[in-house]
Amino acid sequence: MNGLWKISLARFDRDREAIMRAGNVYQLANGYMGYRGTLDEFGTEQFVGITLAGLYDRVGSAWREPVNAPNGGFAQVLVNGTKVSVLSTRIVSHKQILDLANAVFRRITTFSVRGRKVTVTSARFLSASNPHLGGIRLDITCDQAAELEIETGIDYDVWDLNGPHLRQFAGKNRDGILSVTGVTNETGKSVAVAEAITMAEGVGRVVVRDQKNLHRIRLRAEAGRTYTLEKFFAVYTGNDGVRSPVEAAVACVRAAKLQTYAGCLADHNAEWKRKWAQSDVVIEGDDAAQLALRYSIFQLLQVAPLARSAHSIPARALSGQVYKGAIFWDTELFMFPFFLFSDPETARELIRYRIKTLAGARRKARTESVGYRGAFYAWESQETGDEACSYFNIGDPITGRELRTYFRDKQIHISGAIAIASWKYFKVTGDDSLLLGGGAEVILECARFYYSYACFRPDKQRYEIWDVTGPDEYHERVNNNAFTNLVVKATFEIAGETVKYLRRKHPAKLKALIRRLGIAAELPQFASMAQRLYVPPPDKRTGVIEQFDDYFRLEDASVATVKARKIHPNEYLGGGQGVATATQVIKQADVVMMLNLFREHFSRKVKKANWEFYEPRTEHGSSLSACAYAMVAAEFGRLDAAYKYFLETAQVDLAARYKLYAGTTFIGGSHPAANGGAWMTAVFGFGGLQASATQVTIEPRLYRKWRRLAFGVFHRHDRFEIQITRKCIEVRASGTNRASHEFVLAGRKRKIAPGVAVAVSY
Amino acid sequence: MNGLWKISLARFDRDREAIMRAGNVYQLANGYMGYRGTLDEFGTEQFVGITLAGLYDRVGSAWREPVNAPNGGFAQVLVNGTKVSVLSTRIVSHKQILDLANAVFRRITTFSVRGRKVTVTSARFLSASNPHLGGIRLDITCDQAAELEIETGIDYDVWDLNGPHLRQFAGKNRDGILSVTGVTNETGKSVAVAEAITMAEGVGRVVVRDQKNLHRIRLRAEAGRTYTLEKFFAVYTGNDGVRSPVEAAVACVRAAKLQTYAGCLADHNAEWKRKWAQSDVVIEGDDAAQLALRYSIFQLLQVAPLARSAHSIPARALSGQVYKGAIFWDTELFMFPFFLFSDPETARELIRYRIKTLAGARRKARTESVGYRGAFYAWESQETGDEACSYFNIGDPITGRELRTYFRDKQIHISGAIAIASWKYFKVTGDDSLLLGGGAEVILECARFYYSYACFRPDKQRYEIWDVTGPDEYHERVNNNAFTNLVVKATFEIAGETVKYLRRKHPAKLKALIRRLGIAAELPQFASMAQRLYVPPPDKRTGVIEQFDDYFRLEDASVATVKARKIHPNEYLGGGQGVATATQVIKQADVVMMLNLFREHFSRKVKKANWEFYEPRTEHGSSLSACAYAMVAAEFGRLDAAYKYFLETAQVDLAARYKLYAGTTFIGGSHPAANGGAWMTAVFGFGGLQASATQVTIEPRLYRKWRRLAFGVFHRHDRFEIQITRKCIEVRASGTNRASHEFVLAGRKRKIAPGVAVAVSY
Repeated sequence: MNGLWKISLARFDRDREAIMRAGNVYQLANGYMGYRGTLDEFGTEQFVGITLAGLYDRVGSAWREPVNAPNGGFAQVLVNGTKVSVLSTRIVSHKQILDLANAVFRRITTFSVRGRKVTVTSARFLSASNPHLGGIRLDITCDQAAELEIETGIDYDVWDLNGPHLRQFAGKNRDGILSVTGVTNETGKSVAVAEAITMAEGVGRVVVRDQKNLHRIRLRAEAGRTYTLEKFFAVYTGNDGVRSPVEAAVACVRAAKLQTYAGCLADHNAEWKRKWAQSDVVIEGDDAAQLALRYSIFQLLQVAPLARSAHSIPARALSGQVYKGAIFWDTELFMFPFFLFSDPETARELIRYRIKTLAGARRKARTESVGYRGAFYAWESQETGDEACSYFNIGDPITGRELRTYFRDKQIHISGAIAIASWKYFKVTGDDSLLLGGGAEVILECARFYYSYACFRPDKQRYEIWDVTGPDEYHERVNNNAFTNLVVKATFEIAGETVKYLRRKHPAKLKALIRRLGIAAELPQFASMAQRLYVPPPDKRTGVIEQFDDYFRLEDASVATVKARKIHPNEYLGGGQGVATATQVIKQADVVMMLNLFREHFSRKVKKANWEFYEPRTEHGSSLSACAYAMVAAEFGRLDAAYKYFLETAQVDLAARYKLYAGTTFIGGSHPAANGGAWMTAVFGFGGLQASATQVTIEPRLYRKWRRLAFGVFHRHDRFEIQITRKCIEVRASGTNRASHEFVLAGRKRKIAPGVAVAVSY
Repeated sequence: MNGLWKISLARFDRDREAIMRAGNVYQLANGYMGYRGTLDEFGTEQFVGITLAGLYDRVGSAWREPVNAPNGGFAQVLVNGTKVSVLSTRIVSHKQILDLANAVFRRITTFSVRGRKVTVTSARFLSASNPHLGGIRLDITCDQAAELEIETGIDYDVWDLNGPHLRQFAGKNRDGILSVTGVTNETGKSVAVAEAITMAEGVGRVVVRDQKNLHRIRLRAEAGRTYTLEKFFAVYTGNDGVRSPVEAAVACVRAAKLQTYAGCLADHNAEWKRKWAQSDVVIEGDDAAQLALRYSIFQLLQVAPLARSAHSIPARALSGQVYKGAIFWDTELFMFPFFLFSDPETARELIRYRIKTLAGARRKARTESVGYRGAFYAWESQETGDEACSYFNIGDPITGRELRTYFRDKQIHISGAIAIASWKYFKVTGDDSLLLGGGAEVILECARFYYSYACFRPDKQRYEIWDVTGPDEYHERVNNNAFTNLVVKATFEIAGETVKYLRRKHPAKLKALIRRLGIAAELPQFASMAQRLYVPPPDKRTGVIEQFDDYFRLEDASVATVKARKIHPNEYLGGGQGVATATQVIKQADVVMMLNLFREHFSRKVKKANWEFYEPRTEHGSSLSACAYAMVAAEFGRLDAAYKYFLETAQVDLAARYKLYAGTTFIGGSHPAANGGAWMTAVFGFGGLQASATQVTIEPRLYRKWRRLAFGVFHRHDRFEIQITRKCIEVRASGTNRASHEFVLAGRKRKIAPGVAVAVSY
């Protein structure tokens, strides 16, 4: 463990936007909830948010979004009757630290209060072993004797984007354990928060003020002595399957109090140790890359859904309510690969979420337009899989109008992304239980959706896919988007493979499934559609693939030229009349994303040609873009460019320089897809790892600063530790592996038996 | 002849917009050129325009548009050295009159010039017998003796929207005949104007000043005596097949001068007498309707293309350069029917124009997007049939940007409109020479275009037409627009009928055509496509036809609500982000236009249901809309509404209250499609006339104010005069007819032999 396991900030910036960004950078999460990286004394104005996974609510016609819980972590110190706060008190020094090794957030602030120096130190974690629990330890020291007061408890003045989501607040005090319960607006679900404290000194009483249910502890502090408060809060909701969320929360903090802060933290730390042992990636020789990548992996680890939850990861994870707390294709295409190789159990939950929400996808197909069938997964998916994306999803700052966007109804590639991920799970893990437990049904229903969407052009004797929006959202409602068409083709192929596999291994189950879906007549069509589906090919001369029909006819203006046409800094560049719409400027990797998703289909030459064509035309208006360019650049050997885009991806959340608004819509928060993209770039891009059902390939192309790249992967339930140096690849099979696996290391085939290490020079 | 053959204005309004509008109302034309209704002394600032038919030019990247000729009609009177002009001189009285009977424009203005009263009277016509010639007679009277000067000649300071189109001006004077020649910018074609005058008194000399080549005539005018100037001007261009346009123009005015003004006018009047004998429609009992309809017919008569010209009529006819002087679907769907029944020879030229421009339509299909074949006629067509419509066809007054519109690339219904008109010409006239002379080729190539555009939905086992813009241009890029789909279906059917007819009557020609087009493999597909093409059907319960897929899901906001959302009075309501786009508010009749074009396909009940559904949702942002609503209302018996829309249509140009801007684009000018719509409403709507190849049906539904409706029609080369009163229909067959024709008069079948009159009471 070294300095590359921590990030810290040595000053406090009172600027509103800086508070917002720091809240993202220093956030904690444990899969059940996220806690923004705000300070103990903060409130609504500083965007305190405890965002709950999988619990959503809607107020009126505003966007449906995740519910934020009352803040059980609130604590305010007063010295001689004066509140000490970074917002208003003179700060002598301030430091805040996020420890990536065990997800503990600390702050150490020394204030100057009318000549007295007061130091407030706190440490906070959201338990990785008990997802309902948060623990805080608060230490206060005055350099002179003073009257000290601590107000600590539950703040139920909740920050919401489209709230308020909780009503009928009830506060209670049971033998010094405080609780607040609220009820969601839409479905009437309880959200209960309890808080318990332990403090050796002081006289306490309970007060309720300013929407806070508080202990107020007073004591006469001696000069130089440190006073410690241990604080536990717990959240339970109506989603948790307990009879009484408030009773459960109270019981939880009561137990934690008995266990003490140190005891709870020890359990938490053990969990994090296990996580890192499975997931760390080491980069030697490049501290910036190491820290950024580790921070990215940290983000993924802390937002991973709970075991057996069948939850997934929203596009802004648990950093707040942005993007409606919804799950996008981001999860399957950008985050899923990390989990698939580092933590297949979590990858499994991500797929299970899609299986769970299949009914919603079917409803969407039936109702989104006339005559769709199968599974049209939601562009923005919440707990039921019903569509959360609005038809008017972006505000226009010029006219003040809501813009009609076609994310929801035309980004049909989402269904294919799910089918592909489901199939990859099966191929890479070898575990067919998900296929049998709904995965095959998801795949067939996605293919059926495309069957109902596709059209056959009699004049060209081929199938085409019209009227879609590809990854590049600036160009809506295009025909024959290369990415989408290839996704559709792959979905038909996967459907065919699925049927083939089930026919061989589980014929009775296949028969039952086909009968239940009534899909017998369609199935034989899928293969022929896959075969006759048009996918825009690389140009014979240039190798460039046209992103969609007539893309090449659009104005070939530079990104700078297009941006210079803006008349409002936040105006949306795409859609019906955006300044990019009629040009070749694209929001994000589209053809290049296709080259990633189907990397084995395309030659190095085609990758290079398309990278070079599209790279200068890409605005990177999405955090999903840079990693796609990074990986393809690594593959065709442009490592400097690959590295530049890798750092951009890996530092997205750490540097937190992203834009906070699209049009008039607030979009700040964390970027787990970019986090996953950073991992993919390190492992797939520079590490050159690829895996099929029968083989793992490693074709290293280390960036010149990197002396060593080390990571672990699971393949078909077995575990391998991989080290790549500038000359050598070493693969060490775990002693607990069940079988020998075939590796191709820098072109050389090796069978690696359990417990064996193999090194190949290259 | 009564007052219903004249329109007049008894005051002069100096407002710029009023001058613009009056210039449209009082315009003259003769098929070769249009002359805006401006006064003798007007110049560029008053929008003088002599717009030439079929001669286009482009300057830089601005819109290509028709060329305006130098103004050979210029004349300025000076009294004691002071110019007299309605723009600057005190006006004692002013009257201007347009005589619809013979297309003569007169003005009588009495000025007060420093105590003297001067009356200037002029009469102007564009010869209907010699299309190059214009004649003007100018009479000047002073109430006191004065020094009179007349400056008359050619003004080559030409008003252009996107000019200047003429350069290298050369002025000449040959024995008192002035000429000005210019050369177009793009193709270097000559445009020559010559002017000759006859005046008994005065001393003349020639001067060139202010881009004018002028005679200056001075004389000492006696009190009360009228001095007369006769003035002739002629225009010839490089399009006219003469060796020297300027020599031809000089020869023309020289001959006219010999013939005198009165002689030239007599020839002109004879032509107009013939025109009206063929085309007048009499409405007794309703002077407003009579005058408006007559004015509408007058407009059509004067802008009709010259015999054997293979020209057509632009959307703003010859009233200026608006809409690029381009021919739209307006001609085939709104103007063609008038000519088909009143003047088949002109109808023939309109079709010949499309045959002539087939090569341009083929080029457009090949180049507009990948993989179209056949004939994709231009949305805005000029002399070659190549597309004149810009991809950015409307300016946004809010952002100052050009909006990407999809008129050009998605209004594919234009090709079908041409196929349908070509076929109707054959059916109603019985003349197959056009079919053999290119018309069959046009029809087959239009069908082939749709064949290359259509798609087959395997899941639904039907053909569909996606990604089009229908008549309602506010909703672009829609799928399965009912109007378009039915047009496509009809085109396939007509192609089949054409082949059937040729196979029977001209088998060798058919064989040669099929071989030349290489269409043998496609032809058999057309019938099956026609049969399996999806056309949105009337809803089983309501009878309403959905305008396009998912139209019913759009916001059901009223026209007023949508308009109230405008933030700029001229903002465009449609396109990518217009305020109507996401609502059910439509620009113009779309489903209701379909009910007109295919009136025999739909029941009265369906017509009523759709009229009532769409009427309150229609903004009538196009002058093509009102007549469609008028005709359908007449058909299902809502005569008051029919009448209201009829008057709107018929008065469009006369009342001249139309909007002058769409977005930032100037769109003022005449509306020949509405003129044609007025005729259709009178004859098809209230008269209830329908004609097939074998039968003419009359099902009268006279508006309550109308005592008598009388008109003439041609049917298969024979002529009939029809009178409808409130009780009786009378059909009088011309004595020169060649055959007996079957009529169905108010449900009763009658065979009417040449020279016979039949009356049926109803």
